[in-house]
Amino acid sequence: MKNIALTLSYCGTNYHGWQRQDGLPTVQGTLEKIIERQTKVYSPLSGCGRTDRSVHANTYCANFKSDTSIPMDKLPLALNAVLPKDIVVKEAKIVDDDFDARFSCVAKEYTYVFYNDQFPSPFDEHRAFHIIKPLDVGAMREGAQHFVGRQDFAAVKNEGTPVSSTVREIFYCDVRREGKYVFVSVCGDGFLYNMVRNIAGNLWYVGHGKFAPGDIRRILDSCDRCEGGPTAPPQGLYMTRLFYDKEEFSQWMKSR
Amino acid sequence: MKNIALTLSYCGTNYHGWQRQDGLPTVQGTLEKIIERQTKVYSPLSGCGRTDRSVHANTYCANFKSDTSIPMDKLPLALNAVLPKDIVVKEAKIVDDDFDARFSCVAKEYTYVFYNDQFPSPFDEHRAFHIIKPLDVGAMREGAQHFVGRQDFAAVKNEGTPVSSTVREIFYCDVRREGKYVFVSVCGDGFLYNMVRNIAGNLWYVGHGKFAPGDIRRILDSCDRCEGGPTAPPQGLYMTRLFYDKEEFSQWMKSR
Repeated sequence: MKNIALTLSYCGTNYHGWQRQDGLPTVQGTLEKIIERQTKVYSPLSGCGRTDRSVHANTYCANFKSDTSIPMDKLPLALNAVLPKDIVVKEAKIVDDDFDARFSCVAKEYTYVFYNDQFPSPFDEHRAFHIIKPLDVGAMREGAQHFVGRQDFAAVKNEGTPVSSTVREIFYCDVRREGKYVFVSVCGDGFLYNMVRNIAGNLWYVGHGKFAPGDIRRILDSCDRCEGGPTAPPQGLYMTRLFYDKEEFSQWMKSR
Repeated sequence: MKNIALTLSYCGTNYHGWQRQDGLPTVQGTLEKIIERQTKVYSPLSGCGRTDRSVHANTYCANFKSDTSIPMDKLPLALNAVLPKDIVVKEAKIVDDDFDARFSCVAKEYTYVFYNDQFPSPFDEHRAFHIIKPLDVGAMREGAQHFVGRQDFAAVKNEGTPVSSTVREIFYCDVRREGKYVFVSVCGDGFLYNMVRNIAGNLWYVGHGKFAPGDIRRILDSCDRCEGGPTAPPQGLYMTRLFYDKEEFSQWMKSR
């Protein structure tokens, strides 16, 4: 059996997240059905992470075991031909037997997108979080630095599947404005449930002066979810980068 | 009666164009219904131009006569509160009695958006025209220059409502690449039916080497629609700028 890794991209608006759920449209469920149709065998997918309902992925990785005879350079076309237009497979390759899209991942980057204008954008209801009052990006950037490093992120984790540890390492947390959009990009070795949306929610409050940038330190140190700001809504969240190779990741960290 | 000009923005995906049509969702029809609901009187709108089904507007202007007592600074909010999220009114102001969104317009800019990549974008099925083969932007830019000037545009006009003249003035036709997107921005004093989509279709063929840049001259001079390339599909087309003031337009032309 070959171990096949797919790189894909999807618009999450019409899906109840990545993970397969009976009777609900999900990205995993949709893709597994199409893979079964094209390879004639049901093969469960292992995805690089769970994304919530309405969350998007500019890039996403999932692997499955198969003895399909479809060549790897043809597989994306074979899948895209029958996939809905909001899921696109961009690459298929045979990887080592022990490769797992989730556990082999060295680092992931998520980007949270705010649309910051007096009026909403008619194009972005499902693609960004609309914030009317101007965000102070300088203050957000200052607050964001407190998220960087290896530390306990219990204060930005919502209730969910129990985890053995709430310690994670965040490599960078960048805030930038481009026109009416404000982007928060967070890269880490792993993420707790709703962690990026809670980081975005805390930085939103910093951007509006409800929290001082230094309050982020206090919130994280409390390890108490009740100390922080709200969970930002899902439609602003995108998975934006994935690293499976330590050397490649280290190059990326040096080059940015 | 006040003459009220609205500036709006809309995502055209769910509409059969601007113009009111019985039994079909259109932007004009939707907006007129909401204006009637909020001002209690039906007031027909005059729009700056007809946009086809699926065409978008980053900016659009429409005016109507009304004696509503809603203050102009509150009117956008009053309309947006009940409008669907894909139509957003950004400004309302009282204008001269003889102002007409269509006839008072000095210049309009449309932008055609190509998504140029091996794979489609899951986010852009309804927002851009996907072209797989790389576009030669240098050649497109060279070809685009032939569209500039006051001339007969019969060769890039599709059959539609009869017009007295097919002569128009194009002030600029710019082509630029940003990552996987290629933008063609065309500014003119008026446009014939499907003119921008035909300009985009001709430049697409130039970008793929099916036409040499100089062929655009020959195509325009023929005044024959059958000489040129295809009509590019509507979802890539956006109305992007409107000028009602000659001085403001002349400043824009100098500053760009």
